[in-house]
Amino acid sequence: MKIDLNEAVRCLVENDNIVILPHDHPDGDTLGSAFALKRALDKIGKKVKIVCDDGIPEKYSYMIQDVKNDDFSDEKFVVAVDVADISLLGEKTREKYKNKINLAIDHHTSNRLECEKLLLDENAAACCETIYEIIKESGIEIDKKIADCLYTGLSTDSGCFRYSNTTSRTLRMASELVDLGASHFDINVIMFETKTRTYMKLENLVMKTMQMYYDDRCAIVNISQDMYEMSGSNETETDPIVAKTRQIEGVLVGAVLREKSDGSFKVSLRTNKDLDASAICGLLGGGGHPKAAGCQIDGPLENAREKLLDAIGKFLN
Amino acid sequence: MKIDLNEAVRCLVENDNIVILPHDHPDGDTLGSAFALKRALDKIGKKVKIVCDDGIPEKYSYMIQDVKNDDFSDEKFVVAVDVADISLLGEKTREKYKNKINLAIDHHTSNRLECEKLLLDENAAACCETIYEIIKESGIEIDKKIADCLYTGLSTDSGCFRYSNTTSRTLRMASELVDLGASHFDINVIMFETKTRTYMKLENLVMKTMQMYYDDRCAIVNISQDMYEMSGSNETETDPIVAKTRQIEGVLVGAVLREKSDGSFKVSLRTNKDLDASAICGLLGGGGHPKAAGCQIDGPLENAREKLLDAIGKFLN
Repeated sequence: MKIDLNEAVRCLVENDNIVILPHDHPDGDTLGSAFALKRALDKIGKKVKIVCDDGIPEKYSYMIQDVKNDDFSDEKFVVAVDVADISLLGEKTREKYKNKINLAIDHHTSNRLECEKLLLDENAAACCETIYEIIKESGIEIDKKIADCLYTGLSTDSGCFRYSNTTSRTLRMASELVDLGASHFDINVIMFETKTRTYMKLENLVMKTMQMYYDDRCAIVNISQDMYEMSGSNETETDPIVAKTRQIEGVLVGAVLREKSDGSFKVSLRTNKDLDASAICGLLGGGGHPKAAGCQIDGPLENAREKLLDAIGKFLN
Repeated sequence: MKIDLNEAVRCLVENDNIVILPHDHPDGDTLGSAFALKRALDKIGKKVKIVCDDGIPEKYSYMIQDVKNDDFSDEKFVVAVDVADISLLGEKTREKYKNKINLAIDHHTSNRLECEKLLLDENAAACCETIYEIIKESGIEIDKKIADCLYTGLSTDSGCFRYSNTTSRTLRMASELVDLGASHFDINVIMFETKTRTYMKLENLVMKTMQMYYDDRCAIVNISQDMYEMSGSNETETDPIVAKTRQIEGVLVGAVLREKSDGSFKVSLRTNKDLDASAICGLLGGGGHPKAAGCQIDGPLENAREKLLDAIGKFLN
């Protein structure tokens, strides 16, 4: 059942022994939502715990600092934050809380999480926008730590206010959170301005392999196993490279061919304008989102590139 | 003479045949300031022209669209926007307007431009913040095109709200400008998500020159004239490279040494944490902001690097 903000506030204020579920592989928005909400509810004497199969990545550790440690088995109210689908919870959490979610707070248009009550704001750039409104509406004071958590969600989910989901509300809330003490600069340095030296080396090796196709509308780079060795980097650091291929002026399709240890290639593809990344990768047995998708192709490199170019050509020509 | 906002508004409203001077190698803030101010003054029937030795780079062409074309020789009032020093004007403009600047509007702490009246807001992330306040104070309606110009300045000078100069005011103004119709997403794609192929080639050549100093707390790269030739790029495209040096994990000072055609070097320096970029460059006769500053050093490269490292060492040790 869809509910409004006031109803969500009422649910939270009237209940206790609350479990908050962020999604697995947690990001800044789901964690910001979870910790801001916990910290706010802590202030009015609730017992609240956050449950997430994956641990909290080190870079978000400032959210956890000095947080009240509640442990209780008598769980009475379960809230999912920024969780669009049950599959996005970790396996253990999913098993335990399936069909037991009382309230879901989310901003994904595609939300299909089974829950008793759903507060969905599809116009919010981040789930933290809604959490901010809930806390304000409840009259709980927003301290610096809560402001840090909320700002993190706003900033990370909007690409630091660059993405098209950013609205005047997002920016106004960010402004208010800075006034409430959010360490916006420090947070943005951690989230956007910190790259490891090994990543920088890898990026440099990879960008040299760039080749342009289809009248410069397609840019492809490749990463070999050798490059991981030479740079000291690894596959977990390759995401920003994919984004770089799409940033080139005039490029409609950017792709990275990542060699796996078995000699096959993992393809990550990004598109601009109306080109459907998911459809291109679909031709090669993969899938994804309209602007970001992936697939697997057999090696050697020449074979993988040729197959990928064939598929891209069907959409570019 | 330092003046306040009201006095600046009075000057602009009482005068006519106004010349606006952005700085040379114009960026989003100086152009946003110039075109927002011109467009606002156009609305109250003033004759206003913008004078800049360097042309307007193609990516800012949306600012010029449908702008009233005023040409007059009977110039009566000269306003410099975002110009901290006379040397930042192009040679022709400098010769013509030296000692003739009636009003300077700026946000650089290091401002030392000779002018009759100075409106300086050192807390503004962008000169456009002050221009926005001037236009609001004057009661002139801010239309979509003016909002685009002002948003561009705010966004570009604050690294899309990432840099430490970003305040709650910057974000609040951005929010208001989005409400006034600023095409924030399209502008950010142009400013931050589009890179030319020549830039990509240059970046790759430059990043290979990276050297680390002072226990990896300082990263320096250099750009030679050769690299411009090899990549097809030029000095106007080098700004994002400076930012990259500071992004490396653990780096407190990042710098780029850009070789000029006369063999001397233009230094751009960026700092993290509390390190004062302006003070470091001040030791070498330059200046700027706390986290972003610059200076000139004689060649050859080894000399420039040594002098720069000396200055940096005084602050790092």
